[in-house]
Amino acid sequence: MNGKPEVKSNDLIFGNIDGTYIGQNFESRKDLAKSGIHAPGMHGIWGREKEGSCSIVLSGGYEDDIDELDYILYTGQGGQDSPGGTQVSDQEFLRGNKGLQLSCDYKLPVRVTRGHQVQNGPDSGYRYDGLYYVTSYERVLGKSGFYICRFHLESELTIEDLETRLENNLPQNYTTAERKETVINRVSRNIRLREKVKEIYEFRCQVCNILLKKPGGAIAIGAHIKGLGKPHNGPDVLGNMLCLCPNHHDQFDAFSFYIEPETLEINGLEEFTGSKLVVKKLHKLEREFLEYQKQQYFSKNC
Amino acid sequence: MNGKPEVKSNDLIFGNIDGTYIGQNFESRKDLAKSGIHAPGMHGIWGREKEGSCSIVLSGGYEDDIDELDYILYTGQGGQDSPGGTQVSDQEFLRGNKGLQLSCDYKLPVRVTRGHQVQNGPDSGYRYDGLYYVTSYERVLGKSGFYICRFHLESELTIEDLETRLENNLPQNYTTAERKETVINRVSRNIRLREKVKEIYEFRCQVCNILLKKPGGAIAIGAHIKGLGKPHNGPDVLGNMLCLCPNHHDQFDAFSFYIEPETLEINGLEEFTGSKLVVKKLHKLEREFLEYQKQQYFSKNC
Repeated sequence: MNGKPEVKSNDLIFGNIDGTYIGQNFESRKDLAKSGIHAPGMHGIWGREKEGSCSIVLSGGYEDDIDELDYILYTGQGGQDSPGGTQVSDQEFLRGNKGLQLSCDYKLPVRVTRGHQVQNGPDSGYRYDGLYYVTSYERVLGKSGFYICRFHLESELTIEDLETRLENNLPQNYTTAERKETVINRVSRNIRLREKVKEIYEFRCQVCNILLKKPGGAIAIGAHIKGLGKPHNGPDVLGNMLCLCPNHHDQFDAFSFYIEPETLEINGLEEFTGSKLVVKKLHKLEREFLEYQKQQYFSKNC
Repeated sequence: MNGKPEVKSNDLIFGNIDGTYIGQNFESRKDLAKSGIHAPGMHGIWGREKEGSCSIVLSGGYEDDIDELDYILYTGQGGQDSPGGTQVSDQEFLRGNKGLQLSCDYKLPVRVTRGHQVQNGPDSGYRYDGLYYVTSYERVLGKSGFYICRFHLESELTIEDLETRLENNLPQNYTTAERKETVINRVSRNIRLREKVKEIYEFRCQVCNILLKKPGGAIAIGAHIKGLGKPHNGPDVLGNMLCLCPNHHDQFDAFSFYIEPETLEINGLEEFTGSKLVVKKLHKLEREFLEYQKQQYFSKNC
């Protein structure tokens, strides 16, 4: 089969937006929204629970924020009595916060815009400050005494380059950026399926059944059996995916073992001799992809 | 302590070279070497066993090569009776081949230059075709009947962008590339230490002692206890490193467990209650970094 990934026209766009540039100023949130950088008129995070978050605006709403220009400690959304108001309840990894979690897990770029309200912001209006990556996140007690979701973001530029670009805020050629965007959107669309297969198995590895807990969640990888892209050109469909722990994912990708397509026996790992891959009814695994990976295994272990 | 990574002046440079551009032509290997793109006058691979490989030249020396412009299946070095001659013995993951393995494992960019000898090369001399990434590698029986080391490389550009850049081979502004280079060199220097800690423990995880085999090697991660860069700013020294399997690396980075600095007990993982971290005499682990990670654990698991 040659399934193509489902492309919805309203997928979020990750990366730089064509026709915009680092250091560009916008008079209002409305103008910022029109540019395509950050569509929501009020919310600080633009994101979705199954796609990731593609943009944030810093406008001084949270007392726990830290801003060093190239590094940001950003408080998630929710739990305030009014936008920018007092924290009155706990935040959860939902909506935009869940999106930023995904942006971290899948290394997606997040557009950062600073408002005039913050120290490093422009004199007036809003300024687009380029792409940042979420390097980690946590849920901790905030200054208010309520739990907050916190995100560490780093600029893709060094502090020196970032300062230079913001000082000379001239339109830049985004040829390279456009290319990255294409790649990134392709990656981004895989997120739904990768998260889906992890949900089906409740983050347990289909090989060893381990559940790797972490604060606020668990660790697992939604992996393709026949790899995407060259040279394998596998399709991005659920039938071509497995939920694996990082150890078995790395070993599977390196062809350290294979799954017998008919019996689902795990072959090549001594400690799993006689064991079978766990497959749930919800998950229509397609045997041809296991067959392909098996052939690769034998070509690489001859 | 505030150890700084040791910087040797003759470290290889990864990424684009200042003053060069994609599509640039060179009359000879000597001119190519002078540009800084590829120093060795004869060898197709420029690399080192403890640093990675930063550049390759395609000049049609191997019968197993595949070249689709944006994708290359590249045969490693060694085992021929003369350069470009007949394969008379097996290749091993040594020298430049070992370097390309590291470039894959650490996602380092490899400069690719095509010679006039290959189909996609220039009419004469040599042409620099930009940065590629090694996406996987293997050791397989070649057409000659001898084992060869093979590397799959993908251009960082899409095929369309790459063709456009090669057609309009005009000097480009490498401001962005220079920045990346700085970042990449910093990363590259860590490789020696990361590989060192893996060697000390023979690729076994210091938490669970597992050895994850793969064809031609094993899988382990040389991990920092107090993370490099913001917000942790840990030093790049052996005393701040552990050899971990991917599962325990991901859990350690996510603060799912900590190591009691004095007793080395593993705390936070039910299945390891009462177990201790394995530490070899060769490895002078510095307790202050474990103390830092422990504090982070408690701030994120409160």
